Amino acid sequence: MKARVTVTLKQGVLDPQGKAIEGALKALGIDGVASVRQGKVFDVEVPGDDRGRAEAALKAAAERLLANTVIEDYRVEIVG
Amino acid sequence: MKARVTVTLKQGVLDPQGKAIEGALKALGIDGVASVRQGKVFDVEVPGDDRGRAEAALKAAAERLLANTVIEDYRVEIVG
Repeated sequence: MKARVTVTLKQGVLDPQGKAIEGALKALGIDGVASVRQGKVFDVEVPGDDRGRAEAALKAAAERLLANTVIEDYRVEIVG
Repeated sequence: MKARVTVTLKQGVLDPQGKAIEGALKALGIDGVASVRQGKVFDVEVPGDDRGRAEAALKAAAERLLANTVIEDYRVEIVG
C-alpha cells in the first residue's frame, strides 16, 4: 500500500525559507506568486492491506519522527 | 487562489534522507513502514482568478527555482 504524509507549518509560524523563495521568484522576474510556505512530503510504502494498521503506523511515525507537532501539522493519506 | 507544488525525487534517484528515516523508524520500534522517500511541498498564494495564468507562473517557478528537473519531478495543483 502506498501512502503520503504531508507536513506543513502551522498558521502563524514564521517561514523564512518561504520568504526567501518569494524573494528569489521576484528576482527571477516570475510575478503572480504572492506568498510561499514550504513543507515536507514523505512517500511511504506500507506492507500488507490493512488500512487501519497502516494509518496507525504512519500516525505514530508522524507524531514521533516526521513532524514537530509544536510548530507543524501533518496529514496522512493512503494513496493506493 | 491557493495552489500546491509538490516536488519529489525521480524514480531511481537515491534518497539517503529517506533511508535515514527508515532506519530511525525501526530504531523507534515503529514497524509496518517498508520504504520512505522524502520530497518538498510548496503552498502558494496566487493573486487573481485566472487559473491558466496561475498554472503558467507556477510551472515557471517550479522549472526555474523549486525543482531540480534533472533529478526531481514536480506537480502543480490548484487547490482552491
